[in-house]
Amino acid sequence: MPSQVTLTGVDDVPEITAGADLGAILTAACAKQGMPLTDGDVLVVTQKVVSKAENQVVNLRTITPSALAIDFAKRWEKDARAIEVVLQEAVRIVRMENGVMITETRHGFVCANSGVDASNVGTGSLDFVVLLPTDSDASARRIRDRVRELTKCEIAVIISDTFGRAWREGAGDVAIGVAGIEPLWDYRGAIDNDGRELHSTVIAVADEIAAATELVTNKLTRVPAAVVRGYPFLAGESGIAPIIREREKDLFR
Amino acid sequence: MPSQVTLTGVDDVPEITAGADLGAILTAACAKQGMPLTDGDVLVVTQKVVSKAENQVVNLRTITPSALAIDFAKRWEKDARAIEVVLQEAVRIVRMENGVMITETRHGFVCANSGVDASNVGTGSLDFVVLLPTDSDASARRIRDRVRELTKCEIAVIISDTFGRAWREGAGDVAIGVAGIEPLWDYRGAIDNDGRELHSTVIAVADEIAAATELVTNKLTRVPAAVVRGYPFLAGESGIAPIIREREKDLFR
Repeated sequence: MPSQVTLTGVDDVPEITAGADLGAILTAACAKQGMPLTDGDVLVVTQKVVSKAENQVVNLRTITPSALAIDFAKRWEKDARAIEVVLQEAVRIVRMENGVMITETRHGFVCANSGVDASNVGTGSLDFVVLLPTDSDASARRIRDRVRELTKCEIAVIISDTFGRAWREGAGDVAIGVAGIEPLWDYRGAIDNDGRELHSTVIAVADEIAAATELVTNKLTRVPAAVVRGYPFLAGESGIAPIIREREKDLFR
Repeated sequence: MPSQVTLTGVDDVPEITAGADLGAILTAACAKQGMPLTDGDVLVVTQKVVSKAENQVVNLRTITPSALAIDFAKRWEKDARAIEVVLQEAVRIVRMENGVMITETRHGFVCANSGVDASNVGTGSLDFVVLLPTDSDASARRIRDRVRELTKCEIAVIISDTFGRAWREGAGDVAIGVAGIEPLWDYRGAIDNDGRELHSTVIAVADEIAAATELVTNKLTRVPAAVVRGYPFLAGESGIAPIIREREKDLFR
């Protein structure tokens, strides 16, 4: 039997606002579209709705930009208040040139603009930006626990976000928080078809799952989550930490 | 209707050797497992079988390592001949430290070891390594053309390989050659739900598709290809070039 995995977008989800019970909303949405969540599913939830449910939204009118933010914004025709928020969300600036800010967040993610995002804020105003969840593993666990409570099913949850990469154009979805799934699959020590030991193949399965679901979620329409069915993931509670390269080991930080 | 995409591993593929007609072999394998290729499918073929079909295999006994290769190999307990092959396949060394070689290949890919790989060579010997295809877009086109000839179907083909990343542990599959699909999906200029123009969201769909199929191919068993069905990709013949960041624009090269 060939292995088969299905990716299904979860649509018909209401606009998510602060305090929304995402676990219950997504459980209901899956049931409504005829595919109730079941044991072994991976529910991938895009960061934007998680942050909105957790009220990680900043009104730029409350922000006083620093001299650094004002200077960078002026040079690159950006909103100094938004730049200030990016700086405040960073623990370290990895690159700040050509109008691009690559920063390290307090979670340890290296990404553009500390993950701060201005699109699809859902306030009907252009004066708001969305921050990453404070603790994205905790966000994933809360959704997982709520789904378990409502359905008695054991699923994994991944919070995904769209990050740029070094060396390659185009962004891709990666995992920023996980619950119930080990984010890395370690083939080291396994033996390949030739009897040769695989030395260095550790696969970032949580990132691959997040990337996969970008094919059924969409930046323009309201598909804030997706269900991955049929993938035999390794269950575990390590959270996202194993996927974050230690600073000392990182040749590009 | 929620959007749905299925990923199916193509198994029961014979051992691929030099000169193998991959297009015909994979067409037959798909038909045999009850899902003949059809219009709109994306056939993702892992690099290793493509390189083997194209005889991109090097016998290390024919390699005389340079002083640089010998020194690096000695310091990090590696095979100096394999290091020499990596150097020969590189147009530029991006990092060479901690036993790690990050290089730029002549295709423009930045990856570990110039994409040279020692696992699953399929020769039954440990003295062989596999190089990337010389022209991976041409490899993809050949397979696509052959499938078209045999099935009269219009599909896209992606050649995938497993690359490490900056900042994050674990490797992931990316596209190294494409035919019939535009590798980037450009949302710039589109309007989000709040009426805000999306400024900078270009998605590397070819990489996301490659990553997705890693969930049904597997490093240890012989699943050298996968079919992605249901994804409304943008057809085109740009090849992989748009996904390669120009050196001058790259902050990490």
